[in-house]
Amino acid sequence: MEKKRICIIGSGNWGSAIAKIVGANAKTQDKFENRVTMYVYEELINGKKLTEIINETHENVKYLPGHRIPENVIAVPDVVEAAKDADILIFVVPHQFIPRICSTLLGNIKPTAIGLSLVKGFDKKEGGGIELISHIISKELHIPVSVLMGANLASEVAEEMFCETTIGCKDKEMAPILRDLIQTSYFRVVVVEDVDSVECCGALKNIVACGAGFVDGLGLGDNTKAAVIRLGLKEMIKFVDVFYPGGKLSTFLESCGVADLITTCYGGRNRKVSEAFVKTGKTIEELEKEMLNGQKLQGPFTAEEVNYMLKSKNMENKFPLFTAVHHICIGQLKAADLIDCIRNHPEHM
Amino acid sequence: MEKKRICIIGSGNWGSAIAKIVGANAKTQDKFENRVTMYVYEELINGKKLTEIINETHENVKYLPGHRIPENVIAVPDVVEAAKDADILIFVVPHQFIPRICSTLLGNIKPTAIGLSLVKGFDKKEGGGIELISHIISKELHIPVSVLMGANLASEVAEEMFCETTIGCKDKEMAPILRDLIQTSYFRVVVVEDVDSVECCGALKNIVACGAGFVDGLGLGDNTKAAVIRLGLKEMIKFVDVFYPGGKLSTFLESCGVADLITTCYGGRNRKVSEAFVKTGKTIEELEKEMLNGQKLQGPFTAEEVNYMLKSKNMENKFPLFTAVHHICIGQLKAADLIDCIRNHPEHM
Repeated sequence: MEKKRICIIGSGNWGSAIAKIVGANAKTQDKFENRVTMYVYEELINGKKLTEIINETHENVKYLPGHRIPENVIAVPDVVEAAKDADILIFVVPHQFIPRICSTLLGNIKPTAIGLSLVKGFDKKEGGGIELISHIISKELHIPVSVLMGANLASEVAEEMFCETTIGCKDKEMAPILRDLIQTSYFRVVVVEDVDSVECCGALKNIVACGAGFVDGLGLGDNTKAAVIRLGLKEMIKFVDVFYPGGKLSTFLESCGVADLITTCYGGRNRKVSEAFVKTGKTIEELEKEMLNGQKLQGPFTAEEVNYMLKSKNMENKFPLFTAVHHICIGQLKAADLIDCIRNHPEHM
Repeated sequence: MEKKRICIIGSGNWGSAIAKIVGANAKTQDKFENRVTMYVYEELINGKKLTEIINETHENVKYLPGHRIPENVIAVPDVVEAAKDADILIFVVPHQFIPRICSTLLGNIKPTAIGLSLVKGFDKKEGGGIELISHIISKELHIPVSVLMGANLASEVAEEMFCETTIGCKDKEMAPILRDLIQTSYFRVVVVEDVDSVECCGALKNIVACGAGFVDGLGLGDNTKAAVIRLGLKEMIKFVDVFYPGGKLSTFLESCGVADLITTCYGGRNRKVSEAFVKTGKTIEELEKEMLNGQKLQGPFTAEEVNYMLKSKNMENKFPLFTAVHHICIGQLKAADLIDCIRNHPEHM
């Protein structure tokens, strides 16, 4: 079998942490080409190109300082140059960059390449509804796309602290190859076939985290928070069942499901900003400026996209938590009314 | 239909919180007899009998001070007197009292009575293995026994903070009656048929909470803690599947499952003492004396019982987290070795 060439598209915090893992595995396993390319959006750091810094010092000084990226990972400022020979394209960029990257890559990659998306979130669909990022990549580039999601705070993964992750991959031949590319003694992989469920978990959990943050802000106690998280998980399951049917319940018990949901609802910035939202009375936009340096918070944005979909299907009342979180985020409902919205949840009927 | 008479056996923190709910529901619903008896282990509080205090002030000043128990709940110091006319017996005492209460009640209750057990934990079985508390009650008294478990810190339930609970009941006729007896606008009930799974969750979660506490004590981060909780949940599911087969996966997504597990692994005294165990180097017994006023911690005890069962069936290696928690608690393994025990978990194979 020919050695698989790997390209990592993206070099932020998470991309660099994954480069550490992928680089090490490519170096030690015969089935992978030693040289791994990493597309780095070029920028100047103290007058020097970031790609040059990475290739000389093997450290992404801007996005993952203090960690060595293996020297077989080569930073490349041109995405086509980085991707053109690759058999496996790992996508790990903020989701708004996906359309532009795909249109640049179209016609410039191996037709036999496959994708692995680490990108979280949905995108608005032309003509209404929402679309999973892996579906967009797949349609744009005409390649199969698997996904990787889990309770994986990048900084802790880079520190080599033990954790698990979930790969969703339909292709039985590729599944063990992707697992071997990603798994290490500290980063444990479970592969499931249920790609859409895995990816939905990565997006929907952030809505639930907003609900958990509201509960924290309201000072409602541990029982209530557990109930909100559980009802959130049930709505995640129902959402997938309605819009991406055919998944397995057990997928929600993988790292991408219950584990990622837990960390996001206890740590995580969606929870934190939502707590501040209740306590300060400021808008989400104001808090994004103050607490996130102007970056957009994923949860309220996903809640809006999901609500757009639910509303158009007349299904808001079947997802009372998702719906309430959206209405609270946009100021149409008081956070204090959250509990009244879920008191007669379909789960209790 | 004749009105159902209710007896609550137990009057601690949790028993008194449940008495508040059951009393209110019995008063307002025709299907229940207004008068609810509550067996109270008699003790003197400043020279006055606790039953008299409760019946005069409608407050359990010792175990749930500051909360009014409805006046239709009558404290009775004799368990036979309290239980003899009851159609529904609610058991809510520490599990070591169950055998003695059952032998006292045998022959002195209605033969048509049913039980509802809120008691958590297993008990050692004569001749080896372990037994669920509801099975013990059922065998001793020859009555069917349902169970109630969930993310239900008694103090928060008494405060009427919103939460959920799970009733496991096989009898389709009794299920709605039990739900109506327990459900309020702030205490939401889901009934499932899967009684043994519900009850196992209530016991097994405490083993996982010890693991979560060790992770906290070791300072291993959010990803690792989420992984330990998730692997714990998977071992809970596997345990039920092996020893109480026929349950449904969805039961573990009820309040008794994932919700109770989460609160126990983030709040909860098993987590707290286990964290201190790592940080101080003291034994569990020493910490029980210091932190719990000599009360036994449930997690290490359940871990021991479960290990006794797993060892006898030669299945320790199929439950590496449960096994490691037990070995750490008894000082046969260092807490720092926990992660090495679950690195090659069957889930990752």
